[in-house]
Amino acid sequence: MSDSESYPKLPRNTVNRYGKPRGKYDYTTIHSIVNSTPILHISFPTPSASDPFPAILPMLGFMGSFATPSSPLSAPLDLYLHGYISSRLMRLGSSPGHGEEEGFPLTIAATHMDGLVLALTPNHHSYNYRSAVLHGYATAVEGVEEKLWAMERITDNVVANRWENTRIPPTKTEMTSTQILKVRIVDASAKVRAGGPSDDRADMKNEELRAKTWVGVVPTWTAFGQPVASAENRVKEVPGYLKEYLEGKNKEGRSNAENAVLGVK
Amino acid sequence: MSDSESYPKLPRNTVNRYGKPRGKYDYTTIHSIVNSTPILHISFPTPSASDPFPAILPMLGFMGSFATPSSPLSAPLDLYLHGYISSRLMRLGSSPGHGEEEGFPLTIAATHMDGLVLALTPNHHSYNYRSAVLHGYATAVEGVEEKLWAMERITDNVVANRWENTRIPPTKTEMTSTQILKVRIVDASAKVRAGGPSDDRADMKNEELRAKTWVGVVPTWTAFGQPVASAENRVKEVPGYLKEYLEGKNKEGRSNAENAVLGVK
Repeated sequence: MSDSESYPKLPRNTVNRYGKPRGKYDYTTIHSIVNSTPILHISFPTPSASDPFPAILPMLGFMGSFATPSSPLSAPLDLYLHGYISSRLMRLGSSPGHGEEEGFPLTIAATHMDGLVLALTPNHHSYNYRSAVLHGYATAVEGVEEKLWAMERITDNVVANRWENTRIPPTKTEMTSTQILKVRIVDASAKVRAGGPSDDRADMKNEELRAKTWVGVVPTWTAFGQPVASAENRVKEVPGYLKEYLEGKNKEGRSNAENAVLGVK
Repeated sequence: MSDSESYPKLPRNTVNRYGKPRGKYDYTTIHSIVNSTPILHISFPTPSASDPFPAILPMLGFMGSFATPSSPLSAPLDLYLHGYISSRLMRLGSSPGHGEEEGFPLTIAATHMDGLVLALTPNHHSYNYRSAVLHGYATAVEGVEEKLWAMERITDNVVANRWENTRIPPTKTEMTSTQILKVRIVDASAKVRAGGPSDDRADMKNEELRAKTWVGVVPTWTAFGQPVASAENRVKEVPGYLKEYLEGKNKEGRSNAENAVLGVK
């Protein structure tokens, strides 16, 4: 599907289950899944030996290149994360012991559900989905210019053009209280399922079963409703950039889900 | 909000950031977030010392009680997961060394996005969301009765009443190829954000800024579109149970998102 370069295929990121039809390693597929996911899930090992559970945090992020901001999704990109950096994560960040690598290890998951796949048997039920898992080493962004750039991109990833339509630049306090992590990705993979149900031959021959069991796909996507102004809002009309963005997202979500029904990956 | 019992508050599951208004520990809040999330994110430590990255897998699951299937969400419940159990996870399962606890440690995240919160400054932008993180010890379900019960519940969590409208019971091969994990939850927490934006006093006094910056909330939810029948489908009408389920989910999603705008948690 894509001519872009790919992430290396290592044991830890190789898609084993349904790897042939569903596994993807190219930059374009993986980066576009991440950049269209409103909430990423970040996992990291916890520092205490007495606590065997890795942490998971929902966070906002995007992939881009500060050195070459116009880089397309097919180019090598870094992952930037925004959000409160918990004391656990901070402690990890300052702890040595990850070998030669600078930063602390993070696993990042981005998942879209594109539809419910309803088959003749529970066993063949599935979802249409696009999911990506990335591994990389995170460091805090200290440079003001890079931090501002990342903050703008993260805001505009929530609503395009929102940044320039708010009070900017951030105050000194806002700059210091905001933490941005830059994750240098070392490997990644995506898994994409599209198309209708696929049933076993024996069930397909069972006419009684087929006569009573509806099979097909229910497309699913994230819906963006009508904006609801705050009591404090003084702007009478919903601004054009916001209207357009929401219409675009609804259209894109629905069309992704409908394409997935047709098996377009 | 709820009279149900709560999970213990330990250092690893205590919500520190905005913990007072947003942190929740009661069974009802946490269990209902999990049971309404179509894709859970499961994280577990990787067995190899040379691989510092925890694994994340998107999986399907639900919370229920096999001993008392009619248990409400306010009761103590186990988490059941369905999906292919990777060789990495299986290796973990058979490895000893998690102290007194039977099973292997899993962290489970369930996240709903309920809206985009648009404030005067990028710094006060947020999402309305309901998220839960649970920690527990997983074992494979071996008992046929419990496994069948969990398979039915998982199918019906995708579309209510779907199980009985498909070819059941599963064949012997389907039973052995399907793996169900039961997770005994040891602690958990939820974080819920609802309501409109909240800006700093200085920005609220900036009339020029307020005159040009729209503030409010865009409700978001998972939309379920019109079912698309497979070429192989022989059932002319979309069945009533499916239509009703999808209408109900769309209504529920929209109403959750709209309630969140009003600050209803």
